[in-house]
Amino acid sequence: MTGTGRTTITGLRGAFLSEGFFILGTVPLETITSVAEMKRWAKLHSAAGKSIGLVPTMGYLHEGHVSLMRRGRRENDLLAASIFVNPTQFGPSEDLSTYPRDLEADSLKCASVGVDALFMPEPGDVYGPGFQTYVDVLEVSEPLCGASRPGHFRGVATVVLKLINTVAPTNIYFGMKDFQQLQVINTMVRDLDVDVNVVPCPTVREADGLAMSSRNSYLSPDERRQAVCLHHALHEAKKLFDAGERSPERYLRVMADRITREPAAQPDYVSLVHPETLRSLEEVDDSALAALAVRVGRTRLIDNMVFHRNNPANKPV
Amino acid sequence: MTGTGRTTITGLRGAFLSEGFFILGTVPLETITSVAEMKRWAKLHSAAGKSIGLVPTMGYLHEGHVSLMRRGRRENDLLAASIFVNPTQFGPSEDLSTYPRDLEADSLKCASVGVDALFMPEPGDVYGPGFQTYVDVLEVSEPLCGASRPGHFRGVATVVLKLINTVAPTNIYFGMKDFQQLQVINTMVRDLDVDVNVVPCPTVREADGLAMSSRNSYLSPDERRQAVCLHHALHEAKKLFDAGERSPERYLRVMADRITREPAAQPDYVSLVHPETLRSLEEVDDSALAALAVRVGRTRLIDNMVFHRNNPANKPV
Repeated sequence: MTGTGRTTITGLRGAFLSEGFFILGTVPLETITSVAEMKRWAKLHSAAGKSIGLVPTMGYLHEGHVSLMRRGRRENDLLAASIFVNPTQFGPSEDLSTYPRDLEADSLKCASVGVDALFMPEPGDVYGPGFQTYVDVLEVSEPLCGASRPGHFRGVATVVLKLINTVAPTNIYFGMKDFQQLQVINTMVRDLDVDVNVVPCPTVREADGLAMSSRNSYLSPDERRQAVCLHHALHEAKKLFDAGERSPERYLRVMADRITREPAAQPDYVSLVHPETLRSLEEVDDSALAALAVRVGRTRLIDNMVFHRNNPANKPV
Repeated sequence: MTGTGRTTITGLRGAFLSEGFFILGTVPLETITSVAEMKRWAKLHSAAGKSIGLVPTMGYLHEGHVSLMRRGRRENDLLAASIFVNPTQFGPSEDLSTYPRDLEADSLKCASVGVDALFMPEPGDVYGPGFQTYVDVLEVSEPLCGASRPGHFRGVATVVLKLINTVAPTNIYFGMKDFQQLQVINTMVRDLDVDVNVVPCPTVREADGLAMSSRNSYLSPDERRQAVCLHHALHEAKKLFDAGERSPERYLRVMADRITREPAAQPDYVSLVHPETLRSLEEVDDSALAALAVRVGRTRLIDNMVFHRNNPANKPV
């Protein structure tokens, strides 16, 4: 780390982007470790009328993150990514200290996708002495992961607002695997008049359907095989929706049955809720979000699927 | 109100500004009643590289507000003021519905000082359907008015952040009469990396020393005479500080005694705290904030004074 909080490495832009094609030449990836320096970078480019995309991450980047970066690269003049394992969104008994990290591999991935600025601040710089301000998004933070992880979404909303205020992005990218997180951010941005466009991006999956997650690295080979039960459970719920099933209990039973068939899998929650308010449904109608959190061994995994009846003709009578 | 949420009146810019001098000609004061329109106005001028000053108020403007506007007029290319009696900062038994209003007089004052845009949004536009996001500044919101008015500073911090995000000001102006409010905003801006310069402005007083406040209009003539006791109590504390008094209890007793000498005055709190953390002092050293809330009849008034030993030679040995 330099005294100014800036270092630059170069990467082959487009090396991971293009299929059977690669762009000659290198582009600089600027690594910024101080909040003040990140603000200067953002101000410089905003003042020049450039659009900035931001992909906030906790690192240990996988193809899900990379898909957000590819989209951010296409849609903005400049692309920033952040890697920050945010302490305020971890509970006291959670995996903050063991969260997987590989900054070297992450930097190469960012450089390859064409990230212009990689922001990797220290916790003591993000949360300075006397820090005491939090953003609370109330209703949509309460159910699902909010019930299992008290304070989690307060930490998420707070750090995301801080990142938005630091980087001043035109567009900010979130994966739909963390669907509740996306709705917490959407609600915060709407309620606090935050000037940013929130871009939801589809979940990226392994070949067997397991949603990509940095926490998948915790799984033993046997747990890894069983972990696909989340995806299968959601697909069974989708079949019910397509068949016009209206009783939420039916969906919940089918999903729980599929999960508990795996010996290492223990549901944390199995829910069917409204995709925007995240309130439990009394009856399934035009749209629903099936959301799961499951412990596979000691690893907590989440996944979800949104169901929509786009065509009114499909609506069950 | 027009369909676009914009109206324009003209006023004599500088009529209240200059002494024995007045500027010929009129300048337009744009009145903006919609949040979306205010954002458009701010974006237009920010993109053109103009600095914007913002004076947030609850209206019923007095010379204290006008002093903030004069300063904002001098320090920015464009000046916006807001009038919004913010429901989320009033408790259920407080004076939201009876808070004094005079929009016509307020508009003329704004036009005279040279405000470019007067933002007067409707509560239902500021807090839309499903609103559920709040900013909590913890420690500095707890003592003083925070203890007497639970939720008050949550409402203040939330609406001020919303105004900042809407108007995108370079500078935002607050009077020091509401000293705790100023420190709540300073803390929020620091902790959430908000890109704005918070400008504290000295309390403006009536001839006898009573701090100007819209709520002074509630006082009967007899109460008005007694209300000066806040100012007198603070001055007696100042005398103690100048004499090197170190015991907080001494200050508190002297201030309480001065207040309770007035038959209509009942202290809500009498405090001596650290000017930044607002924590109670165990011993008075280099600086202190004396802060008071007093009910005069049914009207709750606040005032404060900051004491600093600027010159080390003044320090008692």
